[in-house]
This record gives sequence, C-alpha cells and structure tokens, in this order.
Amino acid sequence: MLRQSQHEVNVATRGRGFYMITGEIDELVRKSGFKTGLATLHLQHTSASLLIQENADPEVRRDLERFFSRLIPDGDRLFQHTCEGDDDMPAHVRTALTAVNLGIPIADGQLALGNWQGIYLWEHRTHAHRRRVVVHLLGE
Amino acid sequence: MLRQSQHEVNVATRGRGFYMITGEIDELVRKSGFKTGLATLHLQHTSASLLIQENADPEVRRDLERFFSRLIPDGDRLFQHTCEGDDDMPAHVRTALTAVNLGIPIADGQLALGNWQGIYLWEHRTHAHRRRVVVHLLGE
Amino acid sequence: MLRQSQHEVNVATRGRGFYMITGEIDELVRKSGFKTGLATLHLQHTSASLLIQENADPEVRRDLERFFSRLIPDGDRLFQHTCEGDDDMPAHVRTALTAVNLGIPIADGQLALGNWQGIYLWEHRTHAHRRRVVVHLLGE
Repeated sequence: MLRQSQHEVNVATRGRGFYMITGEIDELVRKSGFKTGLATLHLQHTSASLLIQENADPEVRRDLERFFSRLIPDGDRLFQHTCEGDDDMPAHVRTALTAVNLGIPIADGQLALGNWQGIYLWEHRTHAHRRRVVVHLLGE
Repeated sequence: MLRQSQHEVNVATRGRGFYMITGEIDELVRKSGFKTGLATLHLQHTSASLLIQENADPEVRRDLERFFSRLIPDGDRLFQHTCEGDDDMPAHVRTALTAVNLGIPIADGQLALGNWQGIYLWEHRTHAHRRRVVVHLLGE
Repeated sequence: MLRQSQHEVNVATRGRGFYMITGEIDELVRKSGFKTGLATLHLQHTSASLLIQENADPEVRRDLERFFSRLIPDGDRLFQHTCEGDDDMPAHVRTALTAVNLGIPIADGQLALGNWQGIYLWEHRTHAHRRRVVVHLLGE
C-alpha cells in the first residue's frame, strides 16, 4: 500500500556556488524503505535554485556560473530593487530562469537519476545563507 | 490512508503581469483536509507561466518583467511566427524559460512555502486572457 | 485505492530538435487504467530537456530554437568545458534554463494538458542520441 513521508534538508551555503545534495536525498529515500515511488523536492527560497546537472567535470558548473553571471550581471542598472544588495535582484532572476522544485521517480530503492545527473542547490547570493529543502516521499 | 482530489482554478488576466494565486490554492488544500501531502499545479497554456517568487516588495516582480522584456523584446525580428501578434512568440519563449507546472509539499495542512514565497500566474500576453490551472492534491 | 506504476520511454533523436512524446505518455496513462491521478516525467540526461509547448504551428518551435541558438551560441568563447564539442556546454546551459522533469495531472483517463500543449523532448546536442524518460504514474 502507498505511504508517504516528509523531511527537511538544511544546507549552509558559503555564498554563490553549487552544493550537491544527491547523497542527503538518496539517504532519505533509502531510510524510507520505498522501492518504487516519487520524491518531490521544494526549496523554500526565492534567490537560490534546485538544479539537476552534470556531476562529472566541475568545469561544467563553473561554465554555468559564467553564463548566468554574464546574462544577469550583478549591479545591472536595469534593476530598481537594489535595497538588498547588487546581487539580490540577479539572484531572483536566476531563480525564475531555473527552478525551486523537482519531482524525481524512485526506482530500485533509489532516485531514478541518470548516471551523470547530480542534484545541486545553487546559491545565487554572494553571502552565506541557510537554505531549507522540504522533501516529500511517496511510495511502497 | 492516502487519498487524492482534483480541482480547477480559473484566472482572468488583464494582460501582461503577475497574478497571485497562493490564496486560492491554499484554500483548496484547507478544504481537502490533508495535513501532509503533495500539491501539483499545472497551467494549461503555452504563453503564460506559473512562478514562485518573492511576495514582499512588488518592485522585484517589476524588475523580473523588465529583465524578461529586455531579454526577449516584443517584435524581435528574429521571430518568424508573427501571425498572432508581436507579443506572442516572446510569450512562448518566456514560458519555455520558466515553468507551467509546480510540485509543492503540503505540511501542517497548508502549502510548505517559504515565508517570502508566493505563487504567481505570470501572464505574458499583452491582452487579457482566461487561464486555467489544474490542481492535483494528494495526502492524508 | 491509489496505486502506482513506473515505465520507461526511449527516444532515439537525430540531433538537435523537438521530438513529440505526448502520444507515448498518453498511451501509458490509458493502459494504467487510472481515471484521475498524477504523471511525473523525468529525463535522465543533462544536455536535453522536457518541454511543454505549442503543438500547432511548427514555426513556434523553430523560433524557440532560433532564440536559444542566439542566446547561447555554439562555440561561445566564454566556455572552458569544450572537450565534448562546441555544442556540449550550450546544451547544458539550455537544460539548466528549461527542465528535465514535469508533473502533469491525469483527468478523465488522460493527461490534463491544454488543447495546444504538447510534450516534447528537446534534444540540444547536434548529433543523434538515445534518451531515456522515466515515467511515474499514480492514480485510481
């Protein structure tokens, strides 16, 4: 019979960059005992993202950062909402262009990710933040 | 025991802009009686988006609109699909760059959103439209 | 009572472009017998996307391709990760800007898509690839 469980994963970021959380989520799936099911991740913030990307060459993530920095430069004069710093509005735009929630099937007792897929919390603010991810697991 | 229910939320837009729907969705969650679960929202259109963004300073949303207007200008000569108006193809691109579906856990009988997160229907067309969101609730 | 099932859809792409998979997914939903429920699709790759977009005028998809090609040009000198070809890092950026998973309610025994919505696998690499989509169905 289908059951559900809910969890929280907290990530202390050290400023802009990628923080892999695949291990934490897979550990929750393993403990749930669900062999088949669905994992839903929701990040409770508007200036950071959840991103599934290549977990091999770290240069891929540096290039992603380079691209987003060029597309949405900190301190862009277009922005009026500047009271929280030069990097705040770019962080909101980066979040809008990516995602704060992910739905990933569970198969054989683990996340059904591809070989090269990792789950990252992408911090867009330049300063350190505490970020919270709510994890909903469903399965049997 | 896990149960599900399904609903429809209709939004009459007055043209390009953000329309908050957090209240309507939270009301459906409350009526479902689910204490823990999962809410999935799906917008049945290709020229508007569902976006989770800051619900505090409205200047954040105006800056998002400024950024997207600059990135994908109405009437851009790049586009060949112009028969539905100067704003139609930019609306499709905006939709591709954002999302039409969201999955949000339910905790303590309400959407597990962060303090500063609101759910918006982002209308990308310049004219008024009727938009439909299908809401699937699962929980117990 | 709620039940679940899980499936795999394989797509042989012939290089960059859009490959409609609505029919394959709707067929899985029909075979499941679920009248109401939730379908979750997850693409196991980091250089292709799942996109819901207009299924009518093919010029819309050609314009999407034109826009993304201009925004993220193959061979852009910004990128350092070039060992897998000029189109590889742009493919990762395109994937980050779109999505690899979708959650779509099931209503009346089929996907609750809008009239003009189709589900596409968007191949971002210039060469042919085999792509795998994991499909989780939940319903009754």
